[in-house]
Amino acid sequence: MNIALIILAAGKGTRMESDLPKVLHKIAGAPMLAHVMKAGNSLEPEKVVVVAGHGADLVTKAAQDYDPEATIVLQDEQLGTGHAAMQARDALAGFEGDAIVMFGDTPFISQDTLERMAEARAKHDVVVLGFNAADPAKYGRLVTEGDTLLRIVEFKDASDEERAITLCNSGVLCASAPMLFDLLDQVNNDNASGEYYLPDIVGIARDKGMSATAVTCDEAETLGINSRAELAVAEKIFQTKARADLIEDGVYMQAPDTVYLSFDTVIGRDAEIEPNVVFGPGVTIESNAQIRAFSHLEGCHVSRGSVVGPYARLRPGAELAEDVRIGNFVEVKNAQIDEGAKVNHLSYIGDAHVGAGSNIGAGTITCNYDGFFKHKTEIGAGAFIGSNTMLVAPVKIGVGALTGSGSVITKSVPDGAMALARAPQDNKEGRATKMFDILKAKKAKSQKDKS
Amino acid sequence: MNIALIILAAGKGTRMESDLPKVLHKIAGAPMLAHVMKAGNSLEPEKVVVVAGHGADLVTKAAQDYDPEATIVLQDEQLGTGHAAMQARDALAGFEGDAIVMFGDTPFISQDTLERMAEARAKHDVVVLGFNAADPAKYGRLVTEGDTLLRIVEFKDASDEERAITLCNSGVLCASAPMLFDLLDQVNNDNASGEYYLPDIVGIARDKGMSATAVTCDEAETLGINSRAELAVAEKIFQTKARADLIEDGVYMQAPDTVYLSFDTVIGRDAEIEPNVVFGPGVTIESNAQIRAFSHLEGCHVSRGSVVGPYARLRPGAELAEDVRIGNFVEVKNAQIDEGAKVNHLSYIGDAHVGAGSNIGAGTITCNYDGFFKHKTEIGAGAFIGSNTMLVAPVKIGVGALTGSGSVITKSVPDGAMALARAPQDNKEGRATKMFDILKAKKAKSQKDKS
Amino acid sequence: MNIALIILAAGKGTRMESDLPKVLHKIAGAPMLAHVMKAGNSLEPEKVVVVAGHGADLVTKAAQDYDPEATIVLQDEQLGTGHAAMQARDALAGFEGDAIVMFGDTPFISQDTLERMAEARAKHDVVVLGFNAADPAKYGRLVTEGDTLLRIVEFKDASDEERAITLCNSGVLCASAPMLFDLLDQVNNDNASGEYYLPDIVGIARDKGMSATAVTCDEAETLGINSRAELAVAEKIFQTKARADLIEDGVYMQAPDTVYLSFDTVIGRDAEIEPNVVFGPGVTIESNAQIRAFSHLEGCHVSRGSVVGPYARLRPGAELAEDVRIGNFVEVKNAQIDEGAKVNHLSYIGDAHVGAGSNIGAGTITCNYDGFFKHKTEIGAGAFIGSNTMLVAPVKIGVGALTGSGSVITKSVPDGAMALARAPQDNKEGRATKMFDILKAKKAKSQKDKS
Repeated sequence: MNIALIILAAGKGTRMESDLPKVLHKIAGAPMLAHVMKAGNSLEPEKVVVVAGHGADLVTKAAQDYDPEATIVLQDEQLGTGHAAMQARDALAGFEGDAIVMFGDTPFISQDTLERMAEARAKHDVVVLGFNAADPAKYGRLVTEGDTLLRIVEFKDASDEERAITLCNSGVLCASAPMLFDLLDQVNNDNASGEYYLPDIVGIARDKGMSATAVTCDEAETLGINSRAELAVAEKIFQTKARADLIEDGVYMQAPDTVYLSFDTVIGRDAEIEPNVVFGPGVTIESNAQIRAFSHLEGCHVSRGSVVGPYARLRPGAELAEDVRIGNFVEVKNAQIDEGAKVNHLSYIGDAHVGAGSNIGAGTITCNYDGFFKHKTEIGAGAFIGSNTMLVAPVKIGVGALTGSGSVITKSVPDGAMALARAPQDNKEGRATKMFDILKAKKAKSQKDKS
Repeated sequence: MNIALIILAAGKGTRMESDLPKVLHKIAGAPMLAHVMKAGNSLEPEKVVVVAGHGADLVTKAAQDYDPEATIVLQDEQLGTGHAAMQARDALAGFEGDAIVMFGDTPFISQDTLERMAEARAKHDVVVLGFNAADPAKYGRLVTEGDTLLRIVEFKDASDEERAITLCNSGVLCASAPMLFDLLDQVNNDNASGEYYLPDIVGIARDKGMSATAVTCDEAETLGINSRAELAVAEKIFQTKARADLIEDGVYMQAPDTVYLSFDTVIGRDAEIEPNVVFGPGVTIESNAQIRAFSHLEGCHVSRGSVVGPYARLRPGAELAEDVRIGNFVEVKNAQIDEGAKVNHLSYIGDAHVGAGSNIGAGTITCNYDGFFKHKTEIGAGAFIGSNTMLVAPVKIGVGALTGSGSVITKSVPDGAMALARAPQDNKEGRATKMFDILKAKKAKSQKDKS
Repeated sequence: MNIALIILAAGKGTRMESDLPKVLHKIAGAPMLAHVMKAGNSLEPEKVVVVAGHGADLVTKAAQDYDPEATIVLQDEQLGTGHAAMQARDALAGFEGDAIVMFGDTPFISQDTLERMAEARAKHDVVVLGFNAADPAKYGRLVTEGDTLLRIVEFKDASDEERAITLCNSGVLCASAPMLFDLLDQVNNDNASGEYYLPDIVGIARDKGMSATAVTCDEAETLGINSRAELAVAEKIFQTKARADLIEDGVYMQAPDTVYLSFDTVIGRDAEIEPNVVFGPGVTIESNAQIRAFSHLEGCHVSRGSVVGPYARLRPGAELAEDVRIGNFVEVKNAQIDEGAKVNHLSYIGDAHVGAGSNIGAGTITCNYDGFFKHKTEIGAGAFIGSNTMLVAPVKIGVGALTGSGSVITKSVPDGAMALARAPQDNKEGRATKMFDILKAKKAKSQKDKS
């Protein structure tokens, strides 16, 4: 069966206390909306429709960053979930498959749950996702009989018997797209809030003799995010699970609670992640690599056997081959570091290619920016870059070449050559003593003047 | 009504296992004593009297650091809380208002609680602060009838019925100052410890026909700190609450548990604090600023839209205007960084003024110290400081000026000028190969010699 | 009584999902095996026999790293704990004392527990270590009468009455060595797994009229590690206890949960450890020293009054005398730093001796490596090393000498001398303006070409 996703993402999220639209707040480095789209993608939907409202420009950008083919429709007024879902009608004109309505602020619905809903649709006209609430509070209740969903009762309208039901409505539902919009057409707003409620379609469908059923998932999947405090809880849930998954797969973390992962972090077996490591989006670590304490990685690749940190920062485009060593207070950006090369201390390597087995001395800087353009540095295999070498790009250091410590290299260095740019050392005997004596006297005087 | 605070701060705190007087141990960067003084300040007290004893010099300094007008009195011998409070008599001679007795090791009494005590004083002669203890254990019990406090019973003297009471004595109390000292005069030390107990004034007051009442606060407010383990618990309580407050106000923290705040940290709405950030005292972050992972800030100001870190250290006197960028492994101290300026990598900027829109290259150092004096560096708007420039202060770089990478700048550079201090590069063909061959042979020999 | 330890360390640990043998996985920086050996060492054993199997080479190395006199015996096939213990027979030929059998994956058995077992041996032939399980599940039960251990019953063979027993078998046991091997000789493998079970010796001993008893320890001591998730739990248990011990001894940690200790970390009273500090093996911190946030220490010594960090990395061989200051983004390796010396910013000090009271400027690097050999740098007392000085080792800076900022020092500098290696500064008027104008035009053109 073809599937379409309708993702409701128009809310402002007043309780977030933020100018950012609610669904763009991030969990593990990705907007909530992307988490929802990722889960929905497992159904290989033919169409993805995102209903935007508040901050529609930003929502559109985020949605299309994740899926360039997503259709964005606008809900100008916020007239309820039924009204929101209805905005997808034109975008799905002619689409005959099933539509699943999801919520952009409910990021943890699993792929498995969505698949079970899609399967249940084979036997029922409307499929609603429910969960057994530990504390059902004021949720709407799903009244069922066998595998039939009889109706959804709002808490305020529920009898005592119905209030004793713990199976609650998550809001997520599935129906054939044309039927969904027909049913939505019949939803009215005769209620206290004057809103069109999506769950009302279940009663209307049942009245027309259609069948409905409930699929049940873990309550944790239905967590909706309405405040930054809830966002922090969601982040913690994500991190805890993601760390446990890596540990189970054979990653060693001395202190898993101090390692922050992104939604897409990949780490191989027998890799070691020391305490206090932060992974931004787009990081892949191969097996047997070691990421030492206080490292920060984004958009980079670390091959097996490489050792990174402590205090290393790998920025987007850092590509480390096998057995590379990136040491402390080193920043690498948009640079390929070949096998066995070492950048051990206090360096900035940006827009560069560092050859295999080369040794980059402490304090080396690729001067890649002239205030207007970025330029590239190339370092040949087996080169030895002396400490505190400035490599003024564009510049090329040959294979097996050497630069003298403290040199500013503005011209390329041939293979096997030694480049020096250095003023001769001049020792002035007794001069330090004399200078310190003068300064000492001056200091004594200034202190005396003050007192 | 005029108010005086009497803060008992004479204890040694043997169980702290420390040479530091107990009340000077810190929570969120401020001595416990300062937390108490801050809470008391909400009553706008006319007089603040701190009773010091152990480590009186250090306690005096800390008290007057917080409030230069605080009066410090000395308790030479530790003869009990009644005796301690009595030491404030001379300092409050002639003061006719109310006195509130607080404890320097009980840092969480809230401003609201103190205000409620001051209000209750309008109707009663003596006001005692009580709390409903989850586990009353050996606390003194407050025996009440309606809103009247009948008496305070020590646990060891209490009947079974009295022991069943859960309302316990926090020790904090309020009475008119002259009456307080009159009552204290009548407290004796006929007890096992031979100490003068402050709570005894309640019985004496009641015997004289005065009225007493209890004001109740949350048990958490009455937490007293007697060991470093309790201090760690108090710190956690403070941090948890401070983080939750910021989150509620619209600050985004991916991992709030890893962000350490000071007692006075201020952060604006929609600011983002990444994991593992430490705030020392005196930091203000405006809205929409971003503090990236592993940053450390003290005594600094970050304006809206600025991005700091990862691995940035802002020290006292760092003032960042809007849209400034301070990057990794950068230290800024006592420096004004104007709008849009960038210091992205591996730099030390101290005692400086960096002009708007200027770009400070990687490895730049303001050489501000000659071993005796500190000197200032001024960088004009739109200047471009090449990587690894040494700015030997005092020195001035003009507007729109440029320094060549690796230059040691000892003289000022005019507006629009380019300063270079650089030896020419000399490529010696084949010299690296030759040198490496010699070293390789030497290494092989030394390894052979060892085996 | 002479004691021998038999430590079973042959298991692969399939559930660890690792190529590393199970007992070599680390807790607090030391392999589990070393934790077990350390506990056993408290008995001053005459012999230590480690039974290796999977990854025997690595296990041998780790065992002998900890105790060079440990004997390693090989268990070729994994035929059960009885079979494993039996492999120690030849290594203990002629040894008449007691043998304690321990497990390499059970790292928390305390020294006190082992001592109590050794004492109990005076009265009984066989001593088994038991624990009262909160959830006995499928553990073997210890059936006792008074202080006599009647038998050990496997869960599957236990009667309902026996299953109600909560005293469970830890596996650890003690018997005279010759008797242990005699008993093991009589253990058979007539069971579902076809394995020889060590606990079976208790029944055999009892059948022969020997006496047995159970010594009881805390359940937490018997924690066995079979997966990385359990390893993470064990690490947490270790850290929590180690931190609490330090706090009780008078160490101040604002955020103990963020401080990672090694099995051998020593910290003195009134030392302060700020948040986010990682201690690798071999660190000693004296009293009143301060280790600031984000520091990383391994194999180093910090004397009283010294301040380290934030963002300082002390590597093996860093020896700090009193009142030394190591600041941010500074790495120190194999270097003695004498009293009162300061290395405050962005420096690498390796293979060096820094004299008392000297001041090492920001960006200083000891160029200790020529690609083949490491060389030493010596800096005299009271020297002033200007910012960004390259000290090309081997080199010696005299007492009270000074190096100019940005100098590359290749020859030694006499006492009291000033060394400069610096090109003169040349200000080219208007040149920056001209250059920026050209680049700006180029940029504008390139942007126009793109659009």
